[in-house]
Amino acid sequence: MNQLSERILREGKNLGNGILKVDGFINHQVDPGLMDECGRELAQRFARLGVTKVLTAEISGIAPALTTARHLGVPVVYARKAKPITMPDQIFLTLAPSHTKGRTVELIVSPDYLGGDERVLILDDFLASGQTILGLVRLAQAAGATVVGIGALIEKEFEGGRARLADLGVPIETLSVIIDMSDGRIVFGD
Amino acid sequence: MNQLSERILREGKNLGNGILKVDGFINHQVDPGLMDECGRELAQRFARLGVTKVLTAEISGIAPALTTARHLGVPVVYARKAKPITMPDQIFLTLAPSHTKGRTVELIVSPDYLGGDERVLILDDFLASGQTILGLVRLAQAAGATVVGIGALIEKEFEGGRARLADLGVPIETLSVIIDMSDGRIVFGD
Repeated sequence: MNQLSERILREGKNLGNGILKVDGFINHQVDPGLMDECGRELAQRFARLGVTKVLTAEISGIAPALTTARHLGVPVVYARKAKPITMPDQIFLTLAPSHTKGRTVELIVSPDYLGGDERVLILDDFLASGQTILGLVRLAQAAGATVVGIGALIEKEFEGGRARLADLGVPIETLSVIIDMSDGRIVFGD
Repeated sequence: MNQLSERILREGKNLGNGILKVDGFINHQVDPGLMDECGRELAQRFARLGVTKVLTAEISGIAPALTTARHLGVPVVYARKAKPITMPDQIFLTLAPSHTKGRTVELIVSPDYLGGDERVLILDDFLASGQTILGLVRLAQAAGATVVGIGALIEKEFEGGRARLADLGVPIETLSVIIDMSDGRIVFGD
């Protein structure tokens, strides 16, 4: 069992309805050393794909995407959920339903930082239903970029995201795969 | 002139009204190598203060706070602007006016991750009016924690944040100080 899965077992909480609380080390309080190790491992797995840019979504994707991008030696772009005043009027925008938020969120990227020649690795903290990641795929496709891989720290396999992304035909790598969260359990796959 | 100031001169854009566009390397697209260097430098400047936690605000504070925390070897907590479902009902919340957003934003921290025994370094991408940082100070004080330092990547000195924070009597360190943005210029201090 790797460092991340051990940490989830020790400190993660199953809040029911498939909600995993990991805000002590991933998405409110962050353990920078753990994030760096996860980024190193993800970068290794995608090292041969010629990635030129990591694409993620604010907010909780930023930490793992930043460390992965650092180990790959490429920039990271995080899609915004609201258009800041510093962004041009012409933007890439898509809508993605958010399970944990119970509503649809906008994902916005400036054309200045996502171009047709990019080889994009999409990265997020969770791969659950796959809807956020599919939104990021649409943004990359709108820019004419090539999605070469998809990665996440934690996969909730029982939400079917991997199957939903299979048609893309790109490698999908996650560090910690949870196969069952029923009855208060947290059960890992191999 | 340091690496960050050089980058601002080369790629930053003065959009008028004191708005500095740095979304090519700090707050939309992020240069992980630059962030790591900035984090290393900030960590060095605060190395002797016995920092136990770095506190920042989502979204654009996350990258520099994460790298600084990594070099200090402590966790980072980012205040949320909306309460996620994984957070308990009892929280620390304060309001901070946002110049660039033109409205007041909430800053929320879970009591689970900010306690009375913490020695807190507050860190953000910008020190401008100081209002966001003052909000983070109030959160730390509400938790009974001790604020031991304040840091930022970029200071817009002409917005008076440093003066507003002076009463706290803690060291304030910024890597790139801009003293004038009138007439489309970007003028650095020493």
